[in-house]
Amino acid sequence: HASRVKQTARCKTLLVLTIDTINPTVKKVEYAVRGPIVQRAVELERELSQGMKKPFAEVIKANIGDAHAMGQQPITFFRQDAKSRACRILQSCGGHSMGAYSASQGIDSVREDVARYIERRDGGVPCDPDDIYLTTGASDGIVTMLKLLVCGEGASRTGVMISIPQYPLYSAALAELGAVQINYYLNEEKCWSLDIPELQRALDEARQYCNPRALCIINPGNPTGQVQSRKCIEDVIQFAAKERLFLMADEVYQDNVYADGCQFHSFKKVLFEMGPEYSDTVELASFHSTSKCYMGECGFRGGYMELINMDDEVKAQLTKLVSVRLCPPVPGQALMDLVVNPPQPGEPSYDNFIKERTATLSALAEKAKLTEQVLNTVQGISCNPVQGAMYSFPRITIPEKAVKEATEKGQQPDMFYCMKMLEETGICLVPGSGFGQKDGTYHFRMTILPPSDKLKILLDKVKEFHQKFTQQYS
Amino acid sequence: HASRVKQTARCKTLLVLTIDTINPTVKKVEYAVRGPIVQRAVELERELSQGMKKPFAEVIKANIGDAHAMGQQPITFFRQDAKSRACRILQSCGGHSMGAYSASQGIDSVREDVARYIERRDGGVPCDPDDIYLTTGASDGIVTMLKLLVCGEGASRTGVMISIPQYPLYSAALAELGAVQINYYLNEEKCWSLDIPELQRALDEARQYCNPRALCIINPGNPTGQVQSRKCIEDVIQFAAKERLFLMADEVYQDNVYADGCQFHSFKKVLFEMGPEYSDTVELASFHSTSKCYMGECGFRGGYMELINMDDEVKAQLTKLVSVRLCPPVPGQALMDLVVNPPQPGEPSYDNFIKERTATLSALAEKAKLTEQVLNTVQGISCNPVQGAMYSFPRITIPEKAVKEATEKGQQPDMFYCMKMLEETGICLVPGSGFGQKDGTYHFRMTILPPSDKLKILLDKVKEFHQKFTQQYS
Ligand SMILES: Cc1ncc(COP(=O)(O)O)c(C=O)c1O
Ligand SMILES: Cc1ncc(COP(=O)(O)O)c(C=O)c1O
Repeated sequence: HASRVKQTARCKTLLVLTIDTINPTVKKVEYAVRGPIVQRAVELERELSQGMKKPFAEVIKANIGDAHAMGQQPITFFRQDAKSRACRILQSCGGHSMGAYSASQGIDSVREDVARYIERRDGGVPCDPDDIYLTTGASDGIVTMLKLLVCGEGASRTGVMISIPQYPLYSAALAELGAVQINYYLNEEKCWSLDIPELQRALDEARQYCNPRALCIINPGNPTGQVQSRKCIEDVIQFAAKERLFLMADEVYQDNVYADGCQFHSFKKVLFEMGPEYSDTVELASFHSTSKCYMGECGFRGGYMELINMDDEVKAQLTKLVSVRLCPPVPGQALMDLVVNPPQPGEPSYDNFIKERTATLSALAEKAKLTEQVLNTVQGISCNPVQGAMYSFPRITIPEKAVKEATEKGQQPDMFYCMKMLEETGICLVPGSGFGQKDGTYHFRMTILPPSDKLKILLDKVKEFHQKFTQQYS
Repeated sequence: HASRVKQTARCKTLLVLTIDTINPTVKKVEYAVRGPIVQRAVELERELSQGMKKPFAEVIKANIGDAHAMGQQPITFFRQDAKSRACRILQSCGGHSMGAYSASQGIDSVREDVARYIERRDGGVPCDPDDIYLTTGASDGIVTMLKLLVCGEGASRTGVMISIPQYPLYSAALAELGAVQINYYLNEEKCWSLDIPELQRALDEARQYCNPRALCIINPGNPTGQVQSRKCIEDVIQFAAKERLFLMADEVYQDNVYADGCQFHSFKKVLFEMGPEYSDTVELASFHSTSKCYMGECGFRGGYMELINMDDEVKAQLTKLVSVRLCPPVPGQALMDLVVNPPQPGEPSYDNFIKERTATLSALAEKAKLTEQVLNTVQGISCNPVQGAMYSFPRITIPEKAVKEATEKGQQPDMFYCMKMLEETGICLVPGSGFGQKDGTYHFRMTILPPSDKLKILLDKVKEFHQKFTQQYS
C-alpha cells in the first residue's frame, strides 16, 4: 500500500481526476452522521479488537438512527410470518421473482396498499396510487424531488428552505445540486418549535439573492425530536400557500411519538381538512421509509413518496427520470408492503405483531424520557423533551478555553468535544455543527436507541465526561 | 380523476413546479428502454386483460434485459441453498440483521469476497478490497463515477466519450449532469467493433468545444452484443493513456459470451498485463452487477465497482458522497456476495449450481444463434452475430414512404416501425434511435431472453411483420 501511495503522489499531476479537478459540487457536500467521528469510531473498534489498550472496553454508537444495529430485534412478522403476503407480492413481480426489475414507479399492488394505508391513517382522505412513487429509502425520494425543483442561475437560482438544525441529507443534496440553502431556525427555547415569523424572516431575506421555491419540514424532527402541533402544521400550509412554496414533508418518524399530548398529524390530512382552497392548490410531497418507526428496517432501503397537486407533465418527467435507474430494490418494496399492510385482528400473526410493536415503541418512549431526565441533571447540559423521533439534541456549554483550543486546531468546538468523548469513553455522538445550530451555541446529537441498560451506562458516562471536560478547561 | 385534471389546468399558472419551471437538465434526460413503447405495451396488457380484442393474444416483451421477467428460473443456490453463507453475511451486519444500514462503501466481508473473486477471474492480478465500492445496481456506480468527473463551464466543460449505439443510462446521466456527450461510432460492418481511428476522430473534434476526460466502454456490448478482443482492449488502454482519459469499463455482461473464439477479458487484467507503465497510471473504474450473466437478479439492485489508480483524496470524496445515501440495499449486497462466492467442488450445492448455470448460459447461447439466423433470413433485416450480452441490434430497411409518414407524425422512423409492430403483433422492442445510430440507418433492439419456444414465435412474427410493413409502404 505504501508504494501505491508514493506512486499516486508521483503521478498526481498526470491523473485525470484529482481533488482539484473533481466536480466542485461534490466537494461542497457534507454529511456529519457518517463523518470523521464515525470513521474514528470504526478505527477504535478495530484497535480494540487488535488488543490495543483503551480507557473503555467497547465503542457505543449513538450516532445513527439504526435500531437493528443497536440490538433491536426485527419484528417477527417482517421476517417469518409474512409468507402469504409474500406470495401476493411475488404474484405482482415479473416472472413471479423478486429478481425481476419492477415498474420504475414501484410495483402496482404495493402502491395500492400504500394508498389504502394512507387513507386509513388520514381518516379517509382519499389517496390515488398513481400519486405514490416507491423509492430506495426516503433519501432517494427527497433527493429526486429536490432535483426536479432546481433551476435558474444567479439571483433566480432555486432556493430551498430547511430547518436548522436539519437532517444533513438536505444540505448535502442542495450542495450537490448547486441550489441555495435557506436556513430557518427552530426555536430551542420553545421546545424546538417552528415559528412562522422566523419562516417569514428567512424567506424575505432569501428573496434578495435567490428564488425560494420549496419549504422542507421534518416532523417528528431529526435531530431535534420535536412533534409539531396541528395548529403549527396549518400555519405552515397557509404560509406555503401565501408564498407559493412547494411543501416537502419528511414524515419518516410518523409512528415515533412519545410525549403526552403529542400526536402525529400528516401534512396531507391537515391540508385536506383545510378545504379546497388549500387542498386543490398547495403542492406537497410527503416521504416515508421502512427505516424508522417500530420497524427500523434500514438495510432494505424501502420507502415511498406521495405527491399531491403535482402537475401531470412534471409527473411524466419524474417517471422518466426514475426509469433511468430502473427500479427501487424489490425486497425493499416488499417490506414496504408489509409495513403498510400489517396483520389484521383475527390473523394468526396479529397478537404477536401488536405485542412486539407496542413493546418496541414503549421501550423507545421510556428511553426518550430517561435521556431527557439524566441529561438535564448535568450542569452545562440542557435538553428539550424528546417528544418523538429517535434523538435528543441537547445544548452543551463548552468552556472558553476549550473553544480556543478547538479553534487553534481548526476544529468546531463541538467536534473537538465529541472527538474527545469518543477517545476517552468510546461513545460515538455527532457534533451539533453537522446539523446546524445558532452561532455560538453547541450541541450534540445522541440517538435513544441503545438497549436500556446500555443507555443508562452511556448517559452516566456522558455526564461524567462532561463534568471532567468542564473542569479541565475551566 | 377528470376533475383533478381540470383543476390542475385551471391552477397551472399558480403551481410552483411546472414543465416550464422544472430543472432543465431533467427535461433533457431520455431513456428509451422504458420509454413510450413500453408504456404502450403496459396499456395493451391492461386492455387485453379487460377483454379488448387485439390482433394478438399476449404482449411479448423483448425490450429489457430482465431474465426472470422472461421466465428464467432463479438459480437455486441464490434462493435456497445459501444458508451457511447467509449466516456469515449476517455476522457482518449491524445487529446481525439485514435491516441495519451497512457501511456506505458496502459490507467489509462482501468487499473482501469481491476482491478474491476478481483475483480468481483475472488470474491472480491483486485486488484490494479498499478499491471496491458496492452499489445499488451498476447504474448507481456509473452515475456516481460520472458525477465525480463533471466540472468546468463552456469550452472547458467535462466531455465523456460513449459508444454509439450505447446503453442510454449513459446519455441520460450526462444530460442530467450537464456534461458533454462525445459520440464515437461502433463499426457495424465489422461486427460492431471499436476502432481506434474513430475514437481519435471523436476526441479531436470534441477538444474544440469541451474538455474530454473519460472514455466509457461496454463489453460485452449493450445493445450491440459484440465481445471485444484482447488486442482491442489493449489499444483502448493505450489510447486512454496517451490521451489522459479516465476509463470506465461496464462489464456487467462478463459471463455472457457465446460465440466461438470469443472470450471475456477484463480491462483490469489487460491493464496489469501491459506492465507498470500502464497499470500504475491509467485510472480505471469497472462495473459489475447481479442483474445480468446467468443470475439475472435485477430486482435486488446489487452491484460493485472497482477503482484502479484513483487518487486517495478523490476516494475520500467518493466515500463521503455515497455516505449521504447511507448504504446500498443489504439484500443486494448479500446477493452480490453469493455471486462472487459460488459453491465450490465438494460443497452440497456445487453440482446443481454448475448444472443450472451451464444450462442457463447454453440456452442463451442457442438463442443468440437462433436470433441471428432467423433475422438474417428476412430481406431488409441484417443482423450481426450476437457474440455476447443479451441483445441483438439488427439493421432494418424502412421504406421511404414509411419514413415520410413517420416524419409527418413527428416520430423517428424506427419508433414508428416498433410502435406499429407492437400494435399489430404484441411484440415490444426498442427502436434503435433510443440507443443512437448512424444518421439514415435504422435498427431495433431485441433481447434474446424469451424462452426458446416463445422466441421462435416472436422471430417468426417479426419476420412476418417486416415483410408486411415493407410491402405496405413500397
Ligand atoms: C429525517 C430523515 N429523513 C430521511 C432519512 C432517510 O432514511 P432512509 O433513506 O433510510 O429511508 C432519515 C434517516 O435517518 C431521516 O432521519
Ligand atoms: C450495459 C449495462 N450497464 C449497466 C446496466 C445497469 O444494470 P443494473 O443497474 O441493474 O445493475 C445495464 C442494464 O441493463 C446494462 O445493460
